[in-house]
Amino acid sequence: MPTLVIANKCYSSWSLRPWLLMKQLGVAFDEIMIPLDLPDTKEKVLRHSPAGKVPILIDGRATVWESLAIMEYVSETFAPAWPEDREARAMARSVAAEMHAGFMALRSACPMNLGKKYASKDRGEAVARDVARFSEIVRQARERFGAGGPFLFGAFSAADAMYAPLATRLETYSIALDRETRAYVDAILSLPAFQEWRSEALKESWIVDADEADEEPIENYRNAA
Amino acid sequence: MPTLVIANKCYSSWSLRPWLLMKQLGVAFDEIMIPLDLPDTKEKVLRHSPAGKVPILIDGRATVWESLAIMEYVSETFAPAWPEDREARAMARSVAAEMHAGFMALRSACPMNLGKKYASKDRGEAVARDVARFSEIVRQARERFGAGGPFLFGAFSAADAMYAPLATRLETYSIALDRETRAYVDAILSLPAFQEWRSEALKESWIVDADEADEEPIENYRNAA
Ligand SMILES: N[C@@H](CCC(=O)N[C@@H](CS)C(=O)NCC(=O)O)C(=O)O
Ligand SMILES: N[C@@H](CCC(=O)N[C@@H](CS)C(=O)NCC(=O)O)C(=O)O
Repeated sequence: MPTLVIANKCYSSWSLRPWLLMKQLGVAFDEIMIPLDLPDTKEKVLRHSPAGKVPILIDGRATVWESLAIMEYVSETFAPAWPEDREARAMARSVAAEMHAGFMALRSACPMNLGKKYASKDRGEAVARDVARFSEIVRQARERFGAGGPFLFGAFSAADAMYAPLATRLETYSIALDRETRAYVDAILSLPAFQEWRSEALKESWIVDADEADEEPIENYRNAA
Repeated sequence: MPTLVIANKCYSSWSLRPWLLMKQLGVAFDEIMIPLDLPDTKEKVLRHSPAGKVPILIDGRATVWESLAIMEYVSETFAPAWPEDREARAMARSVAAEMHAGFMALRSACPMNLGKKYASKDRGEAVARDVARFSEIVRQARERFGAGGPFLFGAFSAADAMYAPLATRLETYSIALDRETRAYVDAILSLPAFQEWRSEALKESWIVDADEADEEPIENYRNAA
């Protein structure tokens, strides 16, 4: 059984991606959790991978890091994670890689934080551009390949796992969405595996100050914070 | 025959990656070049891909963007681009994805610029950390999987194509390297496909000011600049 090394579920957006994929595909794994931002975090992560970041998948002699590489490994080794149609698969990998290196404005202005909800407000033009690009991806993927289900390429795939943390941000920061994007975000947030991740996140007590917005929340879902 | 949309060879680090891979694997393709940083650059790129960035691979009804997604597509469709051994492949995809989203300090302090060479100088701690991480990747990949040749996993693979622009930066900015890293960088820069790219780059006349260092070069390889 492989082991997935992750960080706190309330905040670790990169950890959520392969965790959600593997749960949703029914791949069994053990879990090691290393809380972020503590004095010994880096040292503990480095024990598993010299790149010094989570998520990390350990499967016998193979150590895989970087969310996208883990998804390819899962797809090759345990259960197909990409759309079956080759054109859909090409687009799925394109949007997944675009997420992997992109959406910087939205990621830095709106850190993933499952414990809170904030009021809607203007978060600047660069964030608005990222949200618009996300909506465009949802519209174009679903228009061309979405017939078989509520996800980007119909059935749930690795591309959806890559965008899941972004979906939580849109929710946490009450960002206005068109109807189609809203429906897609709701489909992600309703996934059984996401519900499981979220309920575990809400039991955590660590506070990562760097990821807590300097705003009054309109909801506080954790007792801890 | 597929078409690869790229930008100027002197500066476009992302374009170099899939171009080098396809040339080196012997995959035939047509080329469309859109020079960066001109008034109509964005409009021209958007005609091919809504993500608005190059490289873009067009193959019949499939449009693939993002260097990493293009490499997966090439590997599935035209010629295997990843190491055959599954553990090597897992590591190759990990280091490729790490490049895709990382090495920010080195990338922003030392833009790819094949037309010049600059003197060695202290470029700060974050750059030094990126260089050290690169050397660590070279050492670990080659130690475990490098027996069959001079590249990260022995034979040339997509992982090497991902790191090729970084190799040019180390050369352009005269960054000091240990012996093993130096040998690897030289192997990349000696690739016939890289030589071809470079000689085409040196014939270009566009100057992208944002990518020209504010330093006196010690070599100027282009007549143009
Ligand atoms: N590109 C990486 C990003 C991984 C990443 O940034 N992980 C964060 C947690 S969400 C981390 O490990 N931070 C700890 C550190 O940098 O010390 C991936 O796709 O896995
Ligand atoms: N993550 C992308 C990066 C692509 C990228 O940033 N391309 C640059 C040229 S090297 C570009 O298209 N810039 C033009 C623009 O942003 O308008 C990839 O892997 O392909």
